[in-house]
Amino acid sequence: MAPAQPFDKLLEIVGEANFHQDEGALTRFLEEPRGLYKKGAQCAVTPTSVKMVQKVMQFAYQNEIAVVPQSGNTGLVGGQVPATGKEIILSLSKLRQVREVDTSTNVMTLEAGITVLEAQKHAEEADRLFPLSLGSEGSCQIGGILSTNAGGTAVLAYGNSRDLCMGVEAVLADGRLYKGLSKLRKDNTGYDLKDLLVGAEGTLGIITAASMKMFPRPRAFETALLNIASPQVGVEVFEIVRKRAGNRLTSFELLPTIGMDLQLKHELITRDPRAKDAPTNWHILLELSLFEGDEDGALLGVLEELAEKELVADASLCNSLGDRQLMWLMRENYAECQNREAQSIKHDISVAIRDIPTLMDEVDAAAERIVPGIRPIAFGHMGDGNIHYDFLAPEGFEGDFKAFAPEIHKATYEILAKLNGSISAEHGIGQMKADLLAQKKDPTALDMMKSIKLALDPKNILNPGKILRS
Amino acid sequence: MAPAQPFDKLLEIVGEANFHQDEGALTRFLEEPRGLYKKGAQCAVTPTSVKMVQKVMQFAYQNEIAVVPQSGNTGLVGGQVPATGKEIILSLSKLRQVREVDTSTNVMTLEAGITVLEAQKHAEEADRLFPLSLGSEGSCQIGGILSTNAGGTAVLAYGNSRDLCMGVEAVLADGRLYKGLSKLRKDNTGYDLKDLLVGAEGTLGIITAASMKMFPRPRAFETALLNIASPQVGVEVFEIVRKRAGNRLTSFELLPTIGMDLQLKHELITRDPRAKDAPTNWHILLELSLFEGDEDGALLGVLEELAEKELVADASLCNSLGDRQLMWLMRENYAECQNREAQSIKHDISVAIRDIPTLMDEVDAAAERIVPGIRPIAFGHMGDGNIHYDFLAPEGFEGDFKAFAPEIHKATYEILAKLNGSISAEHGIGQMKADLLAQKKDPTALDMMKSIKLALDPKNILNPGKILRS
Repeated sequence: MAPAQPFDKLLEIVGEANFHQDEGALTRFLEEPRGLYKKGAQCAVTPTSVKMVQKVMQFAYQNEIAVVPQSGNTGLVGGQVPATGKEIILSLSKLRQVREVDTSTNVMTLEAGITVLEAQKHAEEADRLFPLSLGSEGSCQIGGILSTNAGGTAVLAYGNSRDLCMGVEAVLADGRLYKGLSKLRKDNTGYDLKDLLVGAEGTLGIITAASMKMFPRPRAFETALLNIASPQVGVEVFEIVRKRAGNRLTSFELLPTIGMDLQLKHELITRDPRAKDAPTNWHILLELSLFEGDEDGALLGVLEELAEKELVADASLCNSLGDRQLMWLMRENYAECQNREAQSIKHDISVAIRDIPTLMDEVDAAAERIVPGIRPIAFGHMGDGNIHYDFLAPEGFEGDFKAFAPEIHKATYEILAKLNGSISAEHGIGQMKADLLAQKKDPTALDMMKSIKLALDPKNILNPGKILRS
Repeated sequence: MAPAQPFDKLLEIVGEANFHQDEGALTRFLEEPRGLYKKGAQCAVTPTSVKMVQKVMQFAYQNEIAVVPQSGNTGLVGGQVPATGKEIILSLSKLRQVREVDTSTNVMTLEAGITVLEAQKHAEEADRLFPLSLGSEGSCQIGGILSTNAGGTAVLAYGNSRDLCMGVEAVLADGRLYKGLSKLRKDNTGYDLKDLLVGAEGTLGIITAASMKMFPRPRAFETALLNIASPQVGVEVFEIVRKRAGNRLTSFELLPTIGMDLQLKHELITRDPRAKDAPTNWHILLELSLFEGDEDGALLGVLEELAEKELVADASLCNSLGDRQLMWLMRENYAECQNREAQSIKHDISVAIRDIPTLMDEVDAAAERIVPGIRPIAFGHMGDGNIHYDFLAPEGFEGDFKAFAPEIHKATYEILAKLNGSISAEHGIGQMKADLLAQKKDPTALDMMKSIKLALDPKNILNPGKILRS
């Protein structure tokens, strides 16, 4: 099909193989994980070089056409799909070069279309660790994880995507190339443009490549699932473990027992991972990374102290790599088990870790008042204060559970505001939370953001309608 | 003395005790460590509350008067003193509140006028570590170290000031307050304004308070001074130590033997700290931090491996806290021993660690061509690629050594550019390097910085002439 004007020029820039306009070809760019956003797009392009990305943006700038940057299309807040349908989608998925793996400086330079799993493998081949790990790691790509500052399960020890990134290369609204790749651990030469582009969800520039940190590979992991009485006990356990294990504590995940019940019910796991001597409603999935020079059995020492202090009723230790894989699979299934069970209402929020128990008491109570019998399934990265605070419809619930979403969101975000929490801990704002951000963010901060957006994207063509409402 | 118009209003805002206009009272705000900048100022004010800072900025904004924010006045590039003499100095040194020390979240909320040493002590009282450590820690203050993104000797394990900061509160050009204090480890709600304000040297906003990270206190340190043959061996040693010690490696400083010779000569130290069996021209000051659960003697294991591999000729171990203090004092004396010896020409630069040997070969050779007999004294944070690359006048040199500075700078920065290094690793740009930045920085990055500056400070009243030339 011949593209409609003014896209002849765009077709010429990217070539036919990289120009996608008919409905079938567009589907993979438009369908996103939760199926919440259904706008179309004028077309999608898949440039194969940074130069080509620049030309696409020059074209878009001249013609004032809005552009939605996209890489793995795994975002959960509609940041990577159109807001109006008049946009063109600029997919970075064909920027696939590994430009360098430097084991001396421990930095890899990767283009935006490399998946996180591939990045992990490149590091592993160089006997290094790329610590970013999250559910969608097989599909999500460097461009996207940086644009959303993705988190994952090892933030506690290694930080989020922002912390793992030393510099970016990005195409600006008018097609100019910001050359910010860097292997410098220290560089105080002006404003921190890297951190401005990271987490900006493609609204200030399009990240085409990044310098990503690597770390020494742990020689072993020690992993256990602890039975604990309550989230409050979880906070106490965290403090003790962090003190004893320092930076070797790489994961500290809070898991309510309901998630494992559901996984068994829906056959997502076939073996119950929980220790059975003293069943509890709550669990901590705890992992230590051991390096050369660390003695085996560090975790055992920690568990003995926790048992002595009567904080942990029982625990299930992983004794093999297989055990560990199953444990982490179980952790990742916390989203899927909800899909299989019932309708759900979700939040991705964070507070200071000591405020987690208060948050949970108050949010659970508020939700119960709104929908008696509602089933909270609040889980996730307790060690960094980030809870995926989801609710399942009550057992046997009939009707449109999602109709309660506005009321439950409102109650949750009000409690969160009292605790100075974040309305988006790791998924970003996208389309989903742009209105919410406008209500909840410090108005001065919002004004600063708007000024910066206007300064760097005066025609508002970079992912409009995301983060900031125009 | 009655202040001249239009300062009546300013005097009224801050009160007489906080208004400083006569020459004597101004001295302490105007004299900076290296005595390079000699402009005056209209006056200095020392507001005692954030509200008062806001009112000062409202006044400055209305009257279009330029403001130089200052805290400890220890900066080395003229960022904290006036560029024209028409500015008013706004000292944050009376914002002295410790707003909170939260040991559960490991965050302290400190006002801008708290010194780094005080911050260390507050953390220590709470059985925590505030790891920032640098020569001027007794005087430099939170506002300044964040505005310059100061580094120091523990960047390797803990990062620079930016990494230690979770959020800031800042007064903007028009007096509005940006409320960005945060104890959230994860918060993806829009642009990263914290990191934009940190390192902006007071040109985008005035930091009045910050949320600073604390860490578990190490239970012990293991410190040694290694004799090595060359910087290249230093790189090899670094890779081995990092692999073996992981995050426990907190300092890795390169020290040429000349610095210790000079310290003995000028009686800055009374005991030679170097191991004598196999003298070398180069040394590494290495420190491991041990936490609960770490075995003593980790360093010995490392040293054995280094000896086996014939990388380290001999080493001097610190066997007491006193030994360690003396060793670090010796490290800190690397600036002072130059002052006592001769005129010097200095650079604060960084490259990827593997490029340090090339950098040093080429820069030394270039400097020798310019001034035969010139004495390089290149030292510092090798582990993060940051070398304080200084040169002393040749022995017996007479005349104006500093006259060679432009030529030596030019040669150094040209070599640095080839290696993609940074012209300012940790001291910032200030006035000293603003022209250099304009020449060396990626022009697109410079344009982005100018756009952001214009967006957030349209009247150019926040520390004008620093970082960006107007």
